[in-house]
Amino acid sequence: MNTILEEGERIDETGFGSVTIIQKPTDFCYGIDAVLLADFAARKPANTIVDLGTGNGILPLLLSYKFPQAKLIGLEIQEEVSRRASRSVVSNQLEERITILHGDVRDVLTLLMPGGFDAVIANPPYNTEHGGEAAKNEAMKIARHEIAGGLVDFVRGASGLLKSKGDFYMIHRPSRLVDIFCLCRAHRLEPKRIRLIAPRKGNPPNLVLVHCCKDGGIELRIEETLCVYNSEGGYTSEIQKIYERNQQ
Amino acid sequence: MNTILEEGERIDETGFGSVTIIQKPTDFCYGIDAVLLADFAARKPANTIVDLGTGNGILPLLLSYKFPQAKLIGLEIQEEVSRRASRSVVSNQLEERITILHGDVRDVLTLLMPGGFDAVIANPPYNTEHGGEAAKNEAMKIARHEIAGGLVDFVRGASGLLKSKGDFYMIHRPSRLVDIFCLCRAHRLEPKRIRLIAPRKGNPPNLVLVHCCKDGGIELRIEETLCVYNSEGGYTSEIQKIYERNQQ
Repeated sequence: MNTILEEGERIDETGFGSVTIIQKPTDFCYGIDAVLLADFAARKPANTIVDLGTGNGILPLLLSYKFPQAKLIGLEIQEEVSRRASRSVVSNQLEERITILHGDVRDVLTLLMPGGFDAVIANPPYNTEHGGEAAKNEAMKIARHEIAGGLVDFVRGASGLLKSKGDFYMIHRPSRLVDIFCLCRAHRLEPKRIRLIAPRKGNPPNLVLVHCCKDGGIELRIEETLCVYNSEGGYTSEIQKIYERNQQ
Repeated sequence: MNTILEEGERIDETGFGSVTIIQKPTDFCYGIDAVLLADFAARKPANTIVDLGTGNGILPLLLSYKFPQAKLIGLEIQEEVSRRASRSVVSNQLEERITILHGDVRDVLTLLMPGGFDAVIANPPYNTEHGGEAAKNEAMKIARHEIAGGLVDFVRGASGLLKSKGDFYMIHRPSRLVDIFCLCRAHRLEPKRIRLIAPRKGNPPNLVLVHCCKDGGIELRIEETLCVYNSEGGYTSEIQKIYERNQQ
């Protein structure tokens, strides 16, 4: 098993069935964002799903467990990171269901068939090119900052890939919600449902899950805010439930 | 005092200092929305304030108490309702500070000086022309449905009236939040802060307070959701505080 690992890498269990993932902790490890987005996107079945900016492939890996019939594609701009994602696919024996593509989100409509997919998901960089904390290295910088594709590129790509009535799921910062709504609507992705996520009760939200429907009707539903931690510092019962329903 | 009242009307205390208001219960009585909007708008001082669609004048009346120096204008399309608001102004001896104008929000930029105001507030009709519950009479219909001016008219009017860096405060339905963000940004009113309001913990929000800044920079802050009722059916402590800080 270890022959699949390169220097500085390790294999982590995801808690989603027996799915594992190869990660390089000095570059980037997935966080609760990916788990929340996978859970949010998994409420509605889809057969063909594209993950824009897949990184180490966590979202296709998690969703392959949630949707045992789905075909998944993960697009990643960093070659080394995309190779790592591909090795995770092989080590999970998911080659027939997950394809990792090395490419730029800005070129996705030349790489994949426009209008060909049921769902697109994205956990894009949260910070503008020079916003947020400084990243420690190039891999982290590309994962967290809008260097290789900004929000508009993700939205344009998602809209182009989706069938009419297809679903777009994204997690981002609440501070960008006006940008998200305006860009999505301008690209035929009507926001239908959002869920704010706060670290704990009494804190303002620091993440937001967004579900848009291509060519959907106008009406937004805002779900109750999800708190991650309880007052004792442990996960809230709802977060525990999200983890538990993926272990069955 | 009672000579100021017409048939079917009564005088109600607002709880904001000694400010009272004339209301006709068969037409429309103000609700907690107006109190929450006044409190939300009152965090930042303003000297010249316009209320678009003022109805019985509740917002200028409440804000005259919050901002003892401010000059306030309330615009109302229904003649009978605007007369009632004017009589409330007289009965509170606020004629020097509050002006009620009878006119259409779609004409506001011909009635008042464009670019001349520090703040604009609005509690517009929540429902589209044929959406929501059927109204019992014409006055209620105009107050609750987008018959005499839709969201775009309120946003266009607010933007036109405000100075650069002026503030726009509105309360509306969360289901319209995409419309609100896109229309406001398209009219130079950048959404800066929102607060969702839920009837009680565990319910999705049914109201949203929105604060935009004309020509403001891009960055939205989402405050913690405000719950109106506690599990015993009484007001939450935060709602109690909002009422109490207006009685001092």
